[in-house]
Amino acid sequence: MLPDLQSHEDRRGIHIDQVGVSNVRYPLTLPLRAGGEFNTVANLSMTVSLPHYLKGTHMSRFMIALNERKHQFRPDTVHMVLKELLDLLEAEEAFVDMEFPIFLARKAPVSREQGLIDFNFVFRSMSSTSGTNDKNVGVKANVTTLCPCSKEISARGAHNQRSEITIDVRPASDEFVWFEDLIDIAERNASCELYPILKRSDEKAVTERAYDNPRFVEDMVRDIGKDLLGLLHAGKILWLYVASRNFESIHNHDAFARIERGVRGPLLNPREGVDVAITA
Amino acid sequence: MLPDLQSHEDRRGIHIDQVGVSNVRYPLTLPLRAGGEFNTVANLSMTVSLPHYLKGTHMSRFMIALNERKHQFRPDTVHMVLKELLDLLEAEEAFVDMEFPIFLARKAPVSREQGLIDFNFVFRSMSSTSGTNDKNVGVKANVTTLCPCSKEISARGAHNQRSEITIDVRPASDEFVWFEDLIDIAERNASCELYPILKRSDEKAVTERAYDNPRFVEDMVRDIGKDLLGLLHAGKILWLYVASRNFESIHNHDAFARIERGVRGPLLNPREGVDVAITA
Amino acid sequence: MLPDLQSHEDRRGIHIDQVGVSNVRYPLTLPLRAGGEFNTVANLSMTVSLPHYLKGTHMSRFMIALNERKHQFRPDTVHMVLKELLDLLEAEEAFVDMEFPIFLARKAPVSREQGLIDFNFVFRSMSSTSGTNDKNVGVKANVTTLCPCSKEISARGAHNQRSEITIDVRPASDEFVWFEDLIDIAERNASCELYPILKRSDEKAVTERAYDNPRFVEDMVRDIGKDLLGLLHAGKILWLYVASRNFESIHNHDAFARIERGVRGPLLNPREGVDVAITA
Amino acid sequence: MLPDLQSHEDRRGIHIDQVGVSNVRYPLTLPLRAGGEFNTVANLSMTVSLPHYLKGTHMSRFMIALNERKHQFRPDTVHMVLKELLDLLEAEEAFVDMEFPIFLARKAPVSREQGLIDFNFVFRSMSSTSGTNDKNVGVKANVTTLCPCSKEISARGAHNQRSEITIDVRPASDEFVWFEDLIDIAERNASCELYPILKRSDEKAVTERAYDNPRFVEDMVRDIGKDLLGLLHAGKILWLYVASRNFESIHNHDAFARIERGVRGPLLNPREGVDVAITA
Repeated sequence: MLPDLQSHEDRRGIHIDQVGVSNVRYPLTLPLRAGGEFNTVANLSMTVSLPHYLKGTHMSRFMIALNERKHQFRPDTVHMVLKELLDLLEAEEAFVDMEFPIFLARKAPVSREQGLIDFNFVFRSMSSTSGTNDKNVGVKANVTTLCPCSKEISARGAHNQRSEITIDVRPASDEFVWFEDLIDIAERNASCELYPILKRSDEKAVTERAYDNPRFVEDMVRDIGKDLLGLLHAGKILWLYVASRNFESIHNHDAFARIERGVRGPLLNPREGVDVAITA
Repeated sequence: MLPDLQSHEDRRGIHIDQVGVSNVRYPLTLPLRAGGEFNTVANLSMTVSLPHYLKGTHMSRFMIALNERKHQFRPDTVHMVLKELLDLLEAEEAFVDMEFPIFLARKAPVSREQGLIDFNFVFRSMSSTSGTNDKNVGVKANVTTLCPCSKEISARGAHNQRSEITIDVRPASDEFVWFEDLIDIAERNASCELYPILKRSDEKAVTERAYDNPRFVEDMVRDIGKDLLGLLHAGKILWLYVASRNFESIHNHDAFARIERGVRGPLLNPREGVDVAITA
Repeated sequence: MLPDLQSHEDRRGIHIDQVGVSNVRYPLTLPLRAGGEFNTVANLSMTVSLPHYLKGTHMSRFMIALNERKHQFRPDTVHMVLKELLDLLEAEEAFVDMEFPIFLARKAPVSREQGLIDFNFVFRSMSSTSGTNDKNVGVKANVTTLCPCSKEISARGAHNQRSEITIDVRPASDEFVWFEDLIDIAERNASCELYPILKRSDEKAVTERAYDNPRFVEDMVRDIGKDLLGLLHAGKILWLYVASRNFESIHNHDAFARIERGVRGPLLNPREGVDVAITA
Repeated sequence: MLPDLQSHEDRRGIHIDQVGVSNVRYPLTLPLRAGGEFNTVANLSMTVSLPHYLKGTHMSRFMIALNERKHQFRPDTVHMVLKELLDLLEAEEAFVDMEFPIFLARKAPVSREQGLIDFNFVFRSMSSTSGTNDKNVGVKANVTTLCPCSKEISARGAHNQRSEITIDVRPASDEFVWFEDLIDIAERNASCELYPILKRSDEKAVTERAYDNPRFVEDMVRDIGKDLLGLLHAGKILWLYVASRNFESIHNHDAFARIERGVRGPLLNPREGVDVAITA
């Protein structure tokens, strides 16, 4: 029988907030709001809290849980994975984070030529043995932004660029937020959405639409923020974060803005009441 | 006279937490604890809050401030930059973030052959017109970790790897924390520190030192955490975060652990009391 | 009818070697040597040559081809995509490059606990209307390397680390090279292969195996090179490249070695005989 | 006396093209065409060839050479570093590669407000004991491109974006090519150059200039190629490569084009006449 150092007693008196595996690459299949599923590749982390009296966690159990429950690594079923981690690792808190690209079918605005457009999805979740649960749902969606100032002051044209919109929300405990909902909010507030395929008639349409809908980086976070505040006030979400990063076509640096509102949950707050036995 | 859209009134009633420029690359010169200076290249962001009644900020003023006050982009003088941004942009809050590599001279343990070893430094700062100030100081320091379990159970050898230690602290308002202090704390708790130059006599020394000092990812954050808690209890810092990411030599994923203690300042907390005029 | 600038005549007399779309993210399904398939997400580029007398190519046609022929984006059928691009874009040469993660089932050496291990696959291909075809097949496979010098000179232990092995080959025209074949060659010449799941009995096995099989970065490229030279001499491949990048656990920089042998094909050589009409 | 495994005889009969250190981060000071110097941080690799009869190279000697000759890591003096590596490591061929950001002062077009604009420089060099020398000099310069098709077909506006121009050249043996020369060529052929600081009057100027100078990705490589072909035909350079990557503001993928002309030198060609003693 090989010794099990990790199960030894630890006397430093320091509780560990999170310990586990990260940067795990894994293929997943996920549901779409419109029905059906899509295949993707996720970057995962799985961690647990470790009480001050234990020397280490058992890393292999995370990867075994992943292999056995891979079909549950999705927003609506990850609570079963969290429960499994709490049990397997005898932990008070368990955490699963996932990031992966999303692929949605999209038709060009005029020609209706269809392709796939990609976004990034971020999902964070935690459960504790005392019954606390928390989730954060987010997307990174690229869009077109066209500068209102450049349009206003110039005799012709206006600078525009690809911008990355980040939206993160904390759904209320019995609410489900599709990543498609967040993408919709990002895109409908942009100068124009992006397309995988644009024929000439489509390119004319998106060029003119962007020119007709100029948006500062400030407008992006305010208009998206306004839609998200609607969800907040309706009790569907408890917290929101929105940022826009514009890869300015006239500069070599980015324009950036962010807004945060509502109440962060245990996922984003430091752990309360941790018993720190240490005497410095 | 060209129109100034940014100065127009905004009626959406949404205060913007931060707006400005990011991903700005700029050469800086910084002081060393041991005396003297070093040259580096930073990635910078400079932002301000924007009241709900203004449409936009004036992006060019950030870059003008950078160009005029480049010698003040260092931890001990950045408050002058923040004050300048508050004035120039008529803002209630201003933020400057900086990331750059640090280069320290390091002698090999036996041969004393000297080279430069590099780390990453992260510095975040804010000031408000109401007198609030906050700073976070952090490093990313790579070290060697050697697995205690692998050593204990194996007849010979033990797996070891490069690990990335992240330390972030919030210095008390009248305290200064050198990045070298944080690097010292990361390195003295590792299985071994890294070196730019190792001759054979040195390689023997570091191999044996690592073998004699095995450290789990849990040990890394506990031992570093213990040293940082010493600073917390002494009132030198108000908050601490430490994480270790081990690029496991036996896996294709990483082992990860983190600890956070103390009180986050305004830099990391959502802005309180924001006047949201919106009616959803 | 919208004007079609791209079809206009160009008078600069400069043939373009490659023009098209790149950084296209797309989900693909690919076959495994052992039978069955796996789902992944690829980064793609699709380009064609453009004769000196044409102003531009038609970018939307690449994305239409991708959407219509997505099932043919695999090493054994991509020639049909290339033919389609030659036709659609009236080009002399067409190119398709793909990079994606591969997932293989892998059992731990002692416990036989099974998980998925990931590698990166790179595939480059071209066809011309004159009948030239060329392919390059490559993998990036991470492995464990343990330093022979460190082992030899130290009283105990030996530094080891994760290393990234790059293998690229040019299969002979009627030969097929599985990416699994290249992974096998990388792994069997390493100090040890990596595993997704290792229980204590497995960790003992891989620690000792690595210690018993020390490999310099030079050994990695020579031993892998030797196996690949076997394929070259047998006429299965026409060209080989192998590199090892060791993320040294005792340094903050990498050790690197590379070997190249055989005859590069048109994919890697500058285009011959391009008609340059320009008078400087 | 510690054993020196690296100096042992190797019997696999496989010459190694390059072995050494890579991903070395180091602060450098470099000259500017306009006079004066600038400070930057480089990513370096230093390698040598290894004859088939030697087991390994001596890695510490690269880093010692870097530390002792850091002032010679610049395009006009790196031949002294190469000579040192040939001597120190008793090698037939030595290679030094460097990548670093360049910072140039730039005034806004109307307001003349001055800031720093950044580019990336790539420098590759080799020398052999038989007298072969080769250098490649390159830049990555970001610019604005505005789409001619979008402008032509749209009633108003035109999509534009940040584009990354890559230029690499092989200077003739007694010619010196400043990186500023390559940046000039990239920028003067773009729709517009980028600026660190733009006030409203400047923003009007660059918006209109870009609108008045539309450029396809094909135009970028042809017009830059034409300027570089001028250097080629004048005998100042022996080889050229130019690529444009447009981060399309209407798509989530990039448009890409490349041109290569002239004769690659030993740096880019596989090593000729390598004695492969292996019998497969």
